[in-house]
Amino acid sequence: MDLMKKAIEMHEEFKGKLEIKPKMPVNNTYDLSLAYSPGVAAPCIEIEKNRAHVYDYTMKGNLVAVVTDGTAVLGLGDIGPEAALPVMEGKALLLKQFGNVDAVPICLDTKDVDEIVKTVKLISPTFGGINLEDISAPRCFEIEERLRAECNIPVFHDDQHGTAIVVGAGLTNALKIVGKQKEDLKIVINGAGAAGIAILRILLHLGYNNIVMCDSTGVIYSGRAKGMNPIKENIASLTNPENLTGDLTEAIAGADVFIGVSVANLLTENHIKSMKADPIVFALANPNPEITYDNAKAWGVRVIGTGRSDYPNQVNNLLAFPGIFRGALDVRASDINEEMKLAAVEAIASLVTEEELNEDFIIPGSMDERVARVVAEAVGKAAIESGVSELYQPQLKREVVI
Amino acid sequence: MDLMKKAIEMHEEFKGKLEIKPKMPVNNTYDLSLAYSPGVAAPCIEIEKNRAHVYDYTMKGNLVAVVTDGTAVLGLGDIGPEAALPVMEGKALLLKQFGNVDAVPICLDTKDVDEIVKTVKLISPTFGGINLEDISAPRCFEIEERLRAECNIPVFHDDQHGTAIVVGAGLTNALKIVGKQKEDLKIVINGAGAAGIAILRILLHLGYNNIVMCDSTGVIYSGRAKGMNPIKENIASLTNPENLTGDLTEAIAGADVFIGVSVANLLTENHIKSMKADPIVFALANPNPEITYDNAKAWGVRVIGTGRSDYPNQVNNLLAFPGIFRGALDVRASDINEEMKLAAVEAIASLVTEEELNEDFIIPGSMDERVARVVAEAVGKAAIESGVSELYQPQLKREVVI
Repeated sequence: MDLMKKAIEMHEEFKGKLEIKPKMPVNNTYDLSLAYSPGVAAPCIEIEKNRAHVYDYTMKGNLVAVVTDGTAVLGLGDIGPEAALPVMEGKALLLKQFGNVDAVPICLDTKDVDEIVKTVKLISPTFGGINLEDISAPRCFEIEERLRAECNIPVFHDDQHGTAIVVGAGLTNALKIVGKQKEDLKIVINGAGAAGIAILRILLHLGYNNIVMCDSTGVIYSGRAKGMNPIKENIASLTNPENLTGDLTEAIAGADVFIGVSVANLLTENHIKSMKADPIVFALANPNPEITYDNAKAWGVRVIGTGRSDYPNQVNNLLAFPGIFRGALDVRASDINEEMKLAAVEAIASLVTEEELNEDFIIPGSMDERVARVVAEAVGKAAIESGVSELYQPQLKREVVI
Repeated sequence: MDLMKKAIEMHEEFKGKLEIKPKMPVNNTYDLSLAYSPGVAAPCIEIEKNRAHVYDYTMKGNLVAVVTDGTAVLGLGDIGPEAALPVMEGKALLLKQFGNVDAVPICLDTKDVDEIVKTVKLISPTFGGINLEDISAPRCFEIEERLRAECNIPVFHDDQHGTAIVVGAGLTNALKIVGKQKEDLKIVINGAGAAGIAILRILLHLGYNNIVMCDSTGVIYSGRAKGMNPIKENIASLTNPENLTGDLTEAIAGADVFIGVSVANLLTENHIKSMKADPIVFALANPNPEITYDNAKAWGVRVIGTGRSDYPNQVNNLLAFPGIFRGALDVRASDINEEMKLAAVEAIASLVTEEELNEDFIIPGSMDERVARVVAEAVGKAAIESGVSELYQPQLKREVVI
């Protein structure tokens, strides 16, 4: 049966992907007096005395809000908060299934940045973390930045960082295959939206220093006349050390790595032939990549990753977000910072052993159950070492239960 | 073991009362492609075309937000949103256990009425209903009123209406025992907070026409010099047809029914002796009622109900809210209106049969599993008949699954 038809049928049958299940029993009036009035007053009083106890007596410490305004849902664009709900439920489902994180969708009936920030702040007492989802660029940058600054719980925009972390892991392993060093590489990122900018940021943090970024106008460089804005001026200042100009054709000539978060079937044989030996390509346009797996192989690409599950090397942020939230929650991190993201990159990369590593296996499979646990451990450790787990007390340590 | 100590232990052991459970399976990449990308796009597209489909393909239709600002929690007062969370989780637990309603707590970090209204409106696309909880009076009146007007999903402040509905049911049955008619009754309500005003409102709707209301200043009457405000002026205009003045002692003399939502141990033997024959008393102060069960019996009260589970005739709003939300959600009601509340009163009263009815059994037990189903059916029917179930279409009817 057609996948889309089957998906509709499944959604109609289940009427949503999540249900709320009681953990405490209420089988008689004694149970009731413990879970509710009058016994429930006891934890309330303790939390009022010391707010940190909310993590001991409630679900907050394992509860994440998956927040969207419905403006950039999948490839569908601005479809509104109700139409975004199936995706948010899916995200929450995956957080539970892969990270044992309880998550609920919160779809906001506003596109106003101030209102979004305010609303998320006001509902944050209930939650241990906030996953921002499918919010259009450039609004998503400001929303995430402000919420990270103003909330005392971790805030993470997965569309930016999830993909970036997996690309970072894939690139780490691809370089082992081609035997190149990160210092010598020229990387082209095509697409300067949320994902492209997050990839740029993480690659810079990982120590890649010759990155050229292109948008629909062409190479981004300081002083470019057309299509600049403060974000792109900032990109220009951090990239393009050779001050290239022109379009993608100029940018990709002599490049070692191409990372596309742009549009389908963009790369030609000439583009690939103009790259250095052993080209590495991440073609992440969805559902159809910048270059097909078959063309990439035919034209001499050494390592090709896409967003597709039906080809090798799927760049799937499912490898990142469940473990990242699991790790952040386990150590009660107040933030998900760069150190934690870099730790996730390394953890994901480390799961492909030297024996397993080959052109068609640089990234663990999306259903690999080890990934979230290993990522969580690395992320939690990085949170502690980077000082964003101030509440962390060894005697409060809980086991990672995934 | 001491109940409070046991309650703390239970809360610490379970770390919250609820968890989020997947309903759709994700055991392989095919499942993943249905529940998440790319299959999830199909329901998104359908909902974008017709927003009503959100009830067919998502959890919205069975999901209620239990919203508080933490300002009037149990008898503890303004303890803040984090300290209120154990109560909200408890409420959500009971909605699930008794009404099969999925519910999540939302504790708001603001006491500003405009901010509360705005925030609830902005998060409402995810939810099929809003249960307001433990919000202090008189703010709770305005918040509920504005949200009912501005949201297209039912909004219900349980602290007001839940207790009122159960008192209404108890009174219906108590009158059968003493053989009095509602038209002949004089009723005193002591306490003009949220619950007292809601009780007044529902008794007026039920046709009781001689009600005297007292607050801490005494009898509320038009032209009273002290402690009046617009709400109390309104109360005065609706009550006290004999224009009584003075305090509770004057009010209760010659009354048939006393309903207290005030403070412990307020009623004296003289108060009771001054009432008409066969006094009916609902002493709802928590945890200690306005008169103990034993004193009530010793001083000649014929029927006594309290908020306590360890004495007969417990007035527990658990009898009301799960069935009310179940009924409202089952017919996709846009509101929970007076007709639906009155239907709940009758449904609860009807569950005590003529054979069972006696002085110590005027209200079904809180753990009676029939209650929510019978209330849901009555409430759903009333919603349809009163026209607030505009979305109701017979072919969309879902079975009541409790």
